[in-house]
Amino acid sequence: MKDDTGPRGAPVSPGSPENSQVFVYDTTLRDGSQSEDVQFTLEDKIRVAECLDQLGIDYIEGGWPGANPKDIEFFRRIREVSLTHSRISAFGSTRKSGNRTSEDAVLRALIDARTPVVTIFGKSWSLHVEDILGISRRANLEMIRESCDFLKQAGRELVYDAEHFFDGFRENPDFALETLRAAEEGGADWIILCDTNGGSMPWEVERALREVRHSIRTPLGIHAHNDSELAVANSLTAVRAGATQVHGTINGIGERCGNANLVSVIADLVLKLETSVTSARELSRLREVASFVFEIQNRPLPKNQPFVGESAFAHKAGVHVHAIRKNRRAYEHILPEAVGNTQRILLSEHSGRSNLAEKAREYGIPLDSGSPEAVKMLSTLKELEHEGYQFEGAEASFELLMRSASPEYVPYFEIDFFHVRMEQRKDIGEGLSEATIRVRVGDRTEHTAALGNGPVNALDNALRKALGTFYAGVNEITLLDYKVRVLAGAHGTASRVRVLIESSMDSRKWGTVGVSENVITASLLALKDSIVYGLLKSGTVPRG
Amino acid sequence: MKDDTGPRGAPVSPGSPENSQVFVYDTTLRDGSQSEDVQFTLEDKIRVAECLDQLGIDYIEGGWPGANPKDIEFFRRIREVSLTHSRISAFGSTRKSGNRTSEDAVLRALIDARTPVVTIFGKSWSLHVEDILGISRRANLEMIRESCDFLKQAGRELVYDAEHFFDGFRENPDFALETLRAAEEGGADWIILCDTNGGSMPWEVERALREVRHSIRTPLGIHAHNDSELAVANSLTAVRAGATQVHGTINGIGERCGNANLVSVIADLVLKLETSVTSARELSRLREVASFVFEIQNRPLPKNQPFVGESAFAHKAGVHVHAIRKNRRAYEHILPEAVGNTQRILLSEHSGRSNLAEKAREYGIPLDSGSPEAVKMLSTLKELEHEGYQFEGAEASFELLMRSASPEYVPYFEIDFFHVRMEQRKDIGEGLSEATIRVRVGDRTEHTAALGNGPVNALDNALRKALGTFYAGVNEITLLDYKVRVLAGAHGTASRVRVLIESSMDSRKWGTVGVSENVITASLLALKDSIVYGLLKSGTVPRG
Repeated sequence: MKDDTGPRGAPVSPGSPENSQVFVYDTTLRDGSQSEDVQFTLEDKIRVAECLDQLGIDYIEGGWPGANPKDIEFFRRIREVSLTHSRISAFGSTRKSGNRTSEDAVLRALIDARTPVVTIFGKSWSLHVEDILGISRRANLEMIRESCDFLKQAGRELVYDAEHFFDGFRENPDFALETLRAAEEGGADWIILCDTNGGSMPWEVERALREVRHSIRTPLGIHAHNDSELAVANSLTAVRAGATQVHGTINGIGERCGNANLVSVIADLVLKLETSVTSARELSRLREVASFVFEIQNRPLPKNQPFVGESAFAHKAGVHVHAIRKNRRAYEHILPEAVGNTQRILLSEHSGRSNLAEKAREYGIPLDSGSPEAVKMLSTLKELEHEGYQFEGAEASFELLMRSASPEYVPYFEIDFFHVRMEQRKDIGEGLSEATIRVRVGDRTEHTAALGNGPVNALDNALRKALGTFYAGVNEITLLDYKVRVLAGAHGTASRVRVLIESSMDSRKWGTVGVSENVITASLLALKDSIVYGLLKSGTVPRG
Repeated sequence: MKDDTGPRGAPVSPGSPENSQVFVYDTTLRDGSQSEDVQFTLEDKIRVAECLDQLGIDYIEGGWPGANPKDIEFFRRIREVSLTHSRISAFGSTRKSGNRTSEDAVLRALIDARTPVVTIFGKSWSLHVEDILGISRRANLEMIRESCDFLKQAGRELVYDAEHFFDGFRENPDFALETLRAAEEGGADWIILCDTNGGSMPWEVERALREVRHSIRTPLGIHAHNDSELAVANSLTAVRAGATQVHGTINGIGERCGNANLVSVIADLVLKLETSVTSARELSRLREVASFVFEIQNRPLPKNQPFVGESAFAHKAGVHVHAIRKNRRAYEHILPEAVGNTQRILLSEHSGRSNLAEKAREYGIPLDSGSPEAVKMLSTLKELEHEGYQFEGAEASFELLMRSASPEYVPYFEIDFFHVRMEQRKDIGEGLSEATIRVRVGDRTEHTAALGNGPVNALDNALRKALGTFYAGVNEITLLDYKVRVLAGAHGTASRVRVLIESSMDSRKWGTVGVSENVITASLLALKDSIVYGLLKSGTVPRG
């Protein structure tokens, strides 16, 4: 560090963590995307970045323009998004050994990304320098120093990732330290010690960090991988030993066994180490963030995931349940609500009914938790969930379920019948998808037809066309997102299917759900709820 | 410890781990069964016990007869199984506060289980004693001492679990230590410090262990839970601080976020801490054991699980793949084979030409990484991935893509046309889904129809029916899993859709993919590849 204020202006000293703020650096969109089975579309990346910004993440590593040309588009698009907290970083390598620094394509691409922060990785392990790159150690040091200097001259905040640092430090500590010095001389604002292969033990991390701090003044960070199931432990140990930047990914995705799971790291840093990386309010959104990042990947959050998993505060053993009724601390190490989770008692309906009454109050529906209506509603809810309904992310369907249970409820429309067909001929090429539908509003009906890109799209078009003749408001409702998940996949193409739809009207957004063995029917159920909810909230009066 | 040999006769001193053997204690069948969604039948339990015995596990906690009467049957049955290594333990609590020790039903049930080992848990935390049990501290100490003594008199090896030890030690260290002394006075052979709520940090575990060793001579153990994602770290830290028994479950199942994952603990103990808890040969069966325990639960092993997950040694980034070809140590912290796993190269847009040539070699297709064919194939791959194709999990489609690029390739069949329809009438209830299809093999065609649960299922049925008249092998192909993912979801119901199918024939499994704006077409593409691949691998000759 050339001066004694950090990149954000706050004084940073290599003191104890209690004196220094700890910064969180998220690489979900870059290292996370190197996970098997993970692929983010450009839209996904923008949405995740917005979500991370709301969580209060300090740095978001958006991509690797040198390796993935698609990422160049991300860096362009993200400039149009107003982030309130996070700083975007572009990731790449030190210059290629044969190149002139100013002409190196990778470094140029990093500059062209026009991000406030740039992160480059360099080799700290003689094995990589000699066996893999086949260059001299001195050349490697020059590459590091010169690449850092070049990026600093361009006015970027610079994060230097010392790749394979702990392996390098174990086998050849002097050389490993020299590589860090080269980065420091080049002007790096941060030097991140990476356990790239994920094989380091916490005590090795602690020892290395303490040794490094004897000769390096630059603020240090930790970038751990989970190959030995120690990434979170290594991250916390590093912070305790003086690191002030922690790298990781949401839910621990990443190459091989993944990166340090930032969800657990953040929760532990705040609730156990009492470092203020997020506010209490932001922390209470942790579960939402964890679910969201997996939802857009159409993946379920592991139930037993620490802090945010569905089972994290679910109690099964009788003695546990009995004890927590007297005092939650008996079997809960933190308050579930602190991270946006809730306590669950398995095989008991007592807490079920109070949850329900809570929701009803939220919706403005009168419901007594002890009433027969509440008991019946809970029973319906459990039945639906057993069939595959999931109301997280589809609360509008749940609210409609509760409202429609009331005798005063007037439906907006009924669907008398529908028909969908799709054909494709090899010689013709384009397929044809057509839907017909007849809707009923009161004693009037509308029977119409529509085409579409596929059977679901055709049906959606037909439904809106028919309803538009009764309710103009239908045209104000936009479909934002459409997701399909096959449940209990082991029944092959005969499995049940769950469709989740996100809709919007003006600034309001809502989610609806439909479940059926048939993707068309499931989609129609979710579409129906989407439209009914939109009409309800816009104050439209049902003409039933 | 009354004498200075351990229960197994080997000298045990509270020295460094290098001097003492470390014993592994598995509670998969007891604590593991308290996991939400986990249920073991009696047969399951016997099979798991046999499997653990082969792995060289020292202790197997088979059940909790006081809480689960079904477990009584397990203890009877397991006596008929000849185990070569493991000792079975029955689990329970200290006597109830009001009871006479000799008449306590739980202790009696433990004796009646006739196991060589018995494990009981007692309260170490004043909160539990006062708030939950509502008894005096002195009464608690008596319960511990007398229960231990009673079980030792009955000739059992006795393991005492100090429940909530670290929480208790944090809030009231003197009382916590007194409870351990009570167990020692009662003759316990082992005293296990439990992080029951899973909220302890590794440095807290270390400090507590070192303090305990000042006043307790009995060999110590660690029983960690994963609520802070630190169970493995806490277990290793405890061993390093002098614990010689480690508790956990296979794959980390258990209450809430689970117990310490013994798979990772064992691998780390052997390969990193160099303690000999299993032989190298037994260690190489680790992946098999991890898979087996989940297989019988009909659950997949998480792909990113450390050491044994499918992705644990799977490399995606081009620079990683390039490096490991020169030296595996570049991105692998251990040899995958040491734990029964293998290295995998992933295909993706991060791939380079060397990945491709590697794959071609695997498939037995001649391809030079420098050839124009390779360049073209890579370009096609990146284009398809940009459209939404994902070949991870669908390698069969990729192999077919490579094969069909060859001029010698003979197709198995063509689809001339198909038609799918679905209708539902409100008054009738059940929907009707029907598909028709005409396939062509050489100069013959088959035109047929089929029904199904939905349009995709109907089309699947029609396709198999038609092809079955040409290739009997079609009937041997089973669909295992069917997944749908909507891409670029922000286009609502008009978005592109990706379908991934997993199929099997005999013991062979393979994955195929299809992408289209239309879920029917996408499914058909994936189904087509599924069948073609199955026919190809079964040696069926195309009749084109």
